[in-house]
Amino acid sequence: MQLLPVLISLTLLLVGAAATRKPPTHLEFYLHDIVTAVPLSPATAVRVARGVTPLPHNPTIHFGDMYVIDDPLTEGPELSSPALGKAQGLYIFASRTDMALMQTFNMVFTAGPHNGSTIAVVAREPILDPVRELPVVGGTGSFRGATGYVLFRTYSANGTNSVIHVNMCVRARV
Amino acid sequence: MQLLPVLISLTLLLVGAAATRKPPTHLEFYLHDIVTAVPLSPATAVRVARGVTPLPHNPTIHFGDMYVIDDPLTEGPELSSPALGKAQGLYIFASRTDMALMQTFNMVFTAGPHNGSTIAVVAREPILDPVRELPVVGGTGSFRGATGYVLFRTYSANGTNSVIHVNMCVRARV
Amino acid sequence: MQLLPVLISLTLLLVGAAATRKPPTHLEFYLHDIVTAVPLSPATAVRVARGVTPLPHNPTIHFGDMYVIDDPLTEGPELSSPALGKAQGLYIFASRTDMALMQTFNMVFTAGPHNGSTIAVVAREPILDPVRELPVVGGTGSFRGATGYVLFRTYSANGTNSVIHVNMCVRARV
Repeated sequence: MQLLPVLISLTLLLVGAAATRKPPTHLEFYLHDIVTAVPLSPATAVRVARGVTPLPHNPTIHFGDMYVIDDPLTEGPELSSPALGKAQGLYIFASRTDMALMQTFNMVFTAGPHNGSTIAVVAREPILDPVRELPVVGGTGSFRGATGYVLFRTYSANGTNSVIHVNMCVRARV
Repeated sequence: MQLLPVLISLTLLLVGAAATRKPPTHLEFYLHDIVTAVPLSPATAVRVARGVTPLPHNPTIHFGDMYVIDDPLTEGPELSSPALGKAQGLYIFASRTDMALMQTFNMVFTAGPHNGSTIAVVAREPILDPVRELPVVGGTGSFRGATGYVLFRTYSANGTNSVIHVNMCVRARV
Repeated sequence: MQLLPVLISLTLLLVGAAATRKPPTHLEFYLHDIVTAVPLSPATAVRVARGVTPLPHNPTIHFGDMYVIDDPLTEGPELSSPALGKAQGLYIFASRTDMALMQTFNMVFTAGPHNGSTIAVVAREPILDPVRELPVVGGTGSFRGATGYVLFRTYSANGTNSVIHVNMCVRARV
């Protein structure tokens, strides 16, 4: 029976091809968006451009307001919890009517197994929804070629500041 | 002959693996970029940052001008046509010489089978070209993990306002 | 022996499926980020928004400063070297403490085999690192559906201007 070796070779070849798809990585942590300085931290989100038209239900915010962020990522919900990295980028109030952001940011990890790796996100975030899904569009280091998603849930909010529970599921590709 | 069951199992396994690649979704609709308010709508694109150098063939526009958009998406070319969603994000005149935009926006669908789902786009758009291809870099909901492209064609232009015919072809991935 | 034709068909089918994954494209070129005009060129990077807090080690830069770029891409490191295209988009100083940018730009190629095609990048760039990896998140034309990465190395820096050696490795997908 000469076919068996061929079949085995074929199977190994195909398993090898399938293996370029790595298993997903799940991470859970907290993001601190600090617009108003607190004793433990200066502002990590600053407004750099101002829109014209106030939002109907929140006139302190204007359609078009743009913030630049350097938000801490921590293991637990307290700002004093061990640091995992930063979320660096921008968000814009990009709805004339709703509390919905357009976000573009990178998460850089500075501790743990993904130290030095980054995740790129381009997303719409309706910040008052209980759960927001944000697409992962790329990554570097151990996350090179990453695809997947991030789930944001507001853990606590205090005026303009908020703590977000982040649930990340990404798959690196070669 | 014991090989046949093995072969069949192998085939089923591989067909299963291939099935993680879903069929593409094709959508066609219209986008309304309203810089100057009209009777039916306020401005949906507002300038929030201003560049320095006027473009050679259109000195009212400066290299670096940045707009935030909340542009309606509709089924037909009329603004009064049934609403499908919004395109929310930013565009920048990012060429010193040409009418070429750098765009980052999300399309959120608010009606139909993709209600609540979004598509993320990062693109260069040479707005005077007859057809512009924009890359889809991600998505959420029924478009989670989306890849694909969007074709923009100017349907009509009236001063600073324009209606864009949008042809979208995306594939969600798991 | 009836199994051999089946096996061969199966192999051909699977090789066909694998063929939707195209081979990667490698390109090497130089990017010129010109913040201060030089005899050969006006500024190709202009600041359009200003942050509030100066960086600790470089107080001329503020956290939140945003630049719009239309940076030339050339074959060799000299600005007078044959033109390959442009990098058009934005970068923001998105760290309160480090020289780290958040970038969103498209590279449009205007010569050679990829004339008219584009590559979309969303990245964090720690500009003082010897090598920076930037994720490719999409593309158009011959780069439709592109994934991959770009490596930036500073070739030379002169005050606010710099020449970046770019090493690009991308794979188009159908």
